Amino acid sequence: MQHSTQRAQTHELLKSRGIERALFANIATVKWLTGFAPPIQTGPSAFLGGPPMVWYENGAWTLMVFDWQEVNAGEFGKQENCALVSYSGYTVDQPLTGQVKLRGLFRSVVQNNLSGKIGIEARDVPADIALTLHEIGAAELIPLDTWLEPFRRIKTPEEIQKLRDNFRLTDIGHAAARRAVQVGATEIDVWNAAHYAIEKAAGQRVALGNDCVVGYRKDNVGGWPLNNEIRAGDSVVVDLSTILHGYWSDSCAAYYATEPTAKQRAMHHTAQRALDLAISLVKPGAVAREIDAAVREFMRKEGYPVYWHHTGHSLGVTSHEDPRIVPYNDMTLQENMVVMLEPGIYFPGETSVRLEDAVLVRQHGAEILTHHDKALP
Amino acid sequence: MQHSTQRAQTHELLKSRGIERALFANIATVKWLTGFAPPIQTGPSAFLGGPPMVWYENGAWTLMVFDWQEVNAGEFGKQENCALVSYSGYTVDQPLTGQVKLRGLFRSVVQNNLSGKIGIEARDVPADIALTLHEIGAAELIPLDTWLEPFRRIKTPEEIQKLRDNFRLTDIGHAAARRAVQVGATEIDVWNAAHYAIEKAAGQRVALGNDCVVGYRKDNVGGWPLNNEIRAGDSVVVDLSTILHGYWSDSCAAYYATEPTAKQRAMHHTAQRALDLAISLVKPGAVAREIDAAVREFMRKEGYPVYWHHTGHSLGVTSHEDPRIVPYNDMTLQENMVVMLEPGIYFPGETSVRLEDAVLVRQHGAEILTHHDKALP
Repeated sequence: MQHSTQRAQTHELLKSRGIERALFANIATVKWLTGFAPPIQTGPSAFLGGPPMVWYENGAWTLMVFDWQEVNAGEFGKQENCALVSYSGYTVDQPLTGQVKLRGLFRSVVQNNLSGKIGIEARDVPADIALTLHEIGAAELIPLDTWLEPFRRIKTPEEIQKLRDNFRLTDIGHAAARRAVQVGATEIDVWNAAHYAIEKAAGQRVALGNDCVVGYRKDNVGGWPLNNEIRAGDSVVVDLSTILHGYWSDSCAAYYATEPTAKQRAMHHTAQRALDLAISLVKPGAVAREIDAAVREFMRKEGYPVYWHHTGHSLGVTSHEDPRIVPYNDMTLQENMVVMLEPGIYFPGETSVRLEDAVLVRQHGAEILTHHDKALP
Repeated sequence: MQHSTQRAQTHELLKSRGIERALFANIATVKWLTGFAPPIQTGPSAFLGGPPMVWYENGAWTLMVFDWQEVNAGEFGKQENCALVSYSGYTVDQPLTGQVKLRGLFRSVVQNNLSGKIGIEARDVPADIALTLHEIGAAELIPLDTWLEPFRRIKTPEEIQKLRDNFRLTDIGHAAARRAVQVGATEIDVWNAAHYAIEKAAGQRVALGNDCVVGYRKDNVGGWPLNNEIRAGDSVVVDLSTILHGYWSDSCAAYYATEPTAKQRAMHHTAQRALDLAISLVKPGAVAREIDAAVREFMRKEGYPVYWHHTGHSLGVTSHEDPRIVPYNDMTLQENMVVMLEPGIYFPGETSVRLEDAVLVRQHGAEILTHHDKALP
């Protein structure tokens, strides 16, 4: 049963709040509730009538997608308490009316039985769908955006497996990127080496973020690859997120085309010690902001400018989630949370390093999920 | 002035309908109205508060984006009648509240001056934003989804240049794919060769659709590349769409790892003649369904199964738009429309061919925008 834990948790929550019906339309929520992960690489399809939506009614679930997406919906037909219904997005026989058909499908799923409170993700449900609910008799619409976020923080075994599959791919991408960082190669060459290796290993297209930047860029914290050529003495920060099964990974390293300079070696060494420190602090009960403060303080003591970005963050059906490892965050780590840790040192326009691992919070500490080679050459 | 023609047309339309204010949130509309094209390759950013939106008020325009997108917004600050405003999507100083901030920004842009009719793209504006409009005094919300589609059919010179830039990239991708179709290579190898060549030529990441399928696939009409190996005697259909400047291209060919068989040569030859026929019929005043019928009839007479998909379609800020070249469509072609034409012949699980060109409708006929080598080897 894909993601049945997630639906059971949500059912209990809605029940406890007296909500018998609910509509979800945020893509992250839809993925989390059902495991359904539509392709994203080229943006929304021209045949889509709107976002995939999930209707909840007294413990029963219905996922609404368009028929070309059904191919990607995998095992849904077999799920006991989550029906899959679809509308025809493409035809040559009549004008493209996916938008009209989705709304027709929605009405047939919802019917007119709308007494009581109806929860909706008001920030993602299209205005006309909400209006339809109102027109067909919904008495009270309760916005429930963000309600499920606390659940999302603790990963199920099924989710952890999806994340492991992703981290295996980023490891493969990093190995290829590390080899590709050569004098005369460009950022795009390095990026393509990583992406190609990842897609061959996955046997399918895999969306890939985030950064591939040579040290002499003015902003050498991050950015997408360009045709900047790698020269002798350059560092390259390579930060990779794959998106497989609808789940994100994340991992970063700095690579060098030639023997790193003494300054680069010292920076890299400090970044590695900062990362080791961060990982050593991960355990159930650790406070996010305390980890953040300890790593920033370490950077300061080492005499380096303290990075302006987060020390870390969680991820899952999106790239960046709580617990964020940032100065304000009082949240404590719990078992089966997944946390990225990624201290960096940046000298704009000159050179930079960022090292990032992903860890799973286990009873007695951190299990490292990333295994890319971040060692100095 | 980017896309000032589009805004002028829309202004005239709204004025003629007595609509003084309007809110657009469909990404295709936003791109078309402003030229703003956010990156799409990894899906919506975790820091986004909602879709980019455009507010119209008596001839003045405001584009609302989050600050990381502003980097991609290019020349907006300089546009006389289109202001760019943004909210902070990412910070380490407080919880991620892009959704709240977008709504605050929206209220500050809209203010409380909401007399008269307000047009909204009701299928794309989030429910809570529509509700906000209502709460702060909007008297009458007029859904205007699809109103701009007729304008979108006729491309401006600026749009035609964006399309030419894209077609140049697909030509480059096809040249690389054609070379990569070799015995022992996989679909992913061919795909990567195309994608890599495109991104190097563009000097940046470029989203890429659509298909790369070896003839022995059961569905050899289309699909994303897998690790299917190309064998002697195999055909490979390669259908590429780049998305640069927010505009789509599209082009297709079949390539062969070894000398094509007699059957493949005959199929390829017929597909080329069908495409030539289709192109010869393109001129202002030509009726979409008549082109469709003529090409299908040609296929039938040649003794091949008639493809189930469209004969062609237009594109622009989405991948598939009117005029569709399909059986029901009475629409006539007009100058400065852009049309894809793509007859194919499919023997499922065995071999397939599809040849596709893009043409610009000119006063005396078709100007071919694609220049990839579709000839038999």
